[in-house]
Amino acid sequence: MSLPTELDGLREQVELRLEEFLPAADRLPDTLSRAIRYSLFPGGKRLRPVLTLVANRALGGREDLAMPAACAIEMIHTYSLIHDDLPAMDDDDLRRGRATSHRVFGEGIAILTGDALLSISFQVLGRFPAGESHDRLRLRILEVISEAASAEQMIAGQVLDLEMQGRNFDQNILETIHRRKTGALITASVVAGALAANAGPEAVERIRTYGEAIGLAFQIVDDLLDVVGTPESLGKSAGKDARSAKATFPALMGLKESRKRAAGLVEEACAAVSPFGPEASLLVRLARSVVDRSR
Amino acid sequence: MSLPTELDGLREQVELRLEEFLPAADRLPDTLSRAIRYSLFPGGKRLRPVLTLVANRALGGREDLAMPAACAIEMIHTYSLIHDDLPAMDDDDLRRGRATSHRVFGEGIAILTGDALLSISFQVLGRFPAGESHDRLRLRILEVISEAASAEQMIAGQVLDLEMQGRNFDQNILETIHRRKTGALITASVVAGALAANAGPEAVERIRTYGEAIGLAFQIVDDLLDVVGTPESLGKSAGKDARSAKATFPALMGLKESRKRAAGLVEEACAAVSPFGPEASLLVRLARSVVDRSR
Repeated sequence: MSLPTELDGLREQVELRLEEFLPAADRLPDTLSRAIRYSLFPGGKRLRPVLTLVANRALGGREDLAMPAACAIEMIHTYSLIHDDLPAMDDDDLRRGRATSHRVFGEGIAILTGDALLSISFQVLGRFPAGESHDRLRLRILEVISEAASAEQMIAGQVLDLEMQGRNFDQNILETIHRRKTGALITASVVAGALAANAGPEAVERIRTYGEAIGLAFQIVDDLLDVVGTPESLGKSAGKDARSAKATFPALMGLKESRKRAAGLVEEACAAVSPFGPEASLLVRLARSVVDRSR
Repeated sequence: MSLPTELDGLREQVELRLEEFLPAADRLPDTLSRAIRYSLFPGGKRLRPVLTLVANRALGGREDLAMPAACAIEMIHTYSLIHDDLPAMDDDDLRRGRATSHRVFGEGIAILTGDALLSISFQVLGRFPAGESHDRLRLRILEVISEAASAEQMIAGQVLDLEMQGRNFDQNILETIHRRKTGALITASVVAGALAANAGPEAVERIRTYGEAIGLAFQIVDDLLDVVGTPESLGKSAGKDARSAKATFPALMGLKESRKRAAGLVEEACAAVSPFGPEASLLVRLARSVVDRSR
C-alpha cells in the first residue's frame, strides 16, 4: 500500500492472533479449514485491524482489549471479499495476487467459507476479551461491528453496487454505495479501537469522523487504481469497473477531480484527530498512506 | 408438521416479532428487503423458535426474554436454507412450497440475503433483551447460538454433507453430519430458552439432552420423508437424497430401522425432561410431533 513500516509489528501481531482465534484445523472438515486459511493468509494490507490497533493506541488503550475486534473485523472483511468475488456477483478470478476462493475450492465451499468467517467473527466478539468485567465492552464493540456488517450497511452497499451497474448514477448515490460497502467497516474499525480504549464520547466522535473520511477516500483510491493500475501491481483484476459499467468516482468526475476529493477527505480525517496531539501521528500517517498507495 | 395446535399462539407471536426485529423496509435496498421477507414469511413450522419458547415456559421463564433468541435462531435457520438451496450446493428449486430465493431473485441476491439474515440475527442477539441488567444473559445466549451456527457445527455439517455425496458412509459419519447440520441449532434453540429462564446447570443439561435427541430424530424423519413424501406433501423436492446419493438413515439402515431409531430418540428426549413434571407436557408433545409429522 504500503502502510508506514513502523506498523509491521502490529501487522505481525494480527497474523498470529488471527490464527489463534480460528478453530483448530482438526476441529473442521479438512476442505473448510484449508479454504478458511487460504483466504485469510497471507493477508493483504490488514488495513482494518491495523486501524483498530492504532486508534486504540492513540487513545491510550490496551492492545489485548482491542485485538479481538481487530481480528473479527479482518474476518468479516475477508468473508465479504470471498462472497463479492463469486461468479454471481463480481465474478473475479484474482484476489491478493492469487486465484479467488471459488476458483480453487468451488463455489459451494467458497460460499460456506464466507459464512464460516462471518460466524467465527461473531463468536470471537462474543467471547473476547474474556471475563465478566468486559461484558459491557464486548457488547458495545459487537453492536458497532454488527451494525457495520449489517443488511443496512455493508450488505446494502454490495446490493446497490450490483444493481447500479450500467445505470445512471450521481455523486449522492455513489457516496451512499461507497460509505456502506467499504466505509462502514473501516469506520467501525477505528471506533472499536476507541471503545476498547474506553474513550469518551467526544473522542469516539472524532475517531468516527476520521474513519468515515478515510473510508470514503480509500474507496475513491480503489476506483482510481482500477483505472490506472495493472493486475500485477494490484494483485487483483484491473479495468473491471469500466467493463462492468460500475458506479465509480473516476467515471463520475474524472481522475483529477477524484484525486482531489480523496486528498481533501484525508485532510478532513487528519483535522478530526489533531486534538489528540502527538498520539495522533500514526493515525495521520496512516490516513496519508491511504491516498499514496499503489495497491 | 403439524405441531400441537395449542402452539398456534406462540407461532403467531413469532411471526409478529420476526418482522419487528428486521430492519424497516425503507432502510434497505428494495430488492434486499423483499428477498429477506420472501424467505422469512410465510414461514414453515417455526419449529426452532417454538422450541425456544416452550423450553423457556417449561422452566418458568419470561417469554419476552426468550423471544429475541427464538427469532434470531429462525433467521439463522432461514439463512442456512437459502444458502443450502443454491445451485452450487443442493440446487433446489422448491422450498416451503414456493420457488427458492435464487430462482426468484438470482444467485447474487440470494447469497446476500442469507448473509443479511445471519448478520441481523447477531445484531438482535447483541441488543435484546435490552438493558445492562441483561448483559450477561445476552452474552450467554449469543455464545450458545453462535457455537451452533459455527464453522465447527452447522457449516461443517453442510460441508460434510456435500463431500459425502456418492461416498461410502457408516452410522458414525452419518450421525456426525446430522448432529452438526441440523442437531446443533435445534439443541441451541431449547438451551437458549432454558438460559432465558435462568435455569440451573442440571436443567440446562436435561434440556440439552432433549434437544440433541429430537434434533437427530427430526433429521432422520426428514430423511424418511424424502423417500416416502411427495413435493406436494413436503413443500420441497422429494427423492432428492437418493438421486444425489446422499448419506441418509434410510440408505444406511432401511425405512423400518430408521423409524425405530427416531422413535427411540423421542423416548430418550421425553425421559430427559420428565423430572420437570407437568410443565414438561408441551415439550413431550412437541417431541412426539417430530416423528409423527408428514412434512
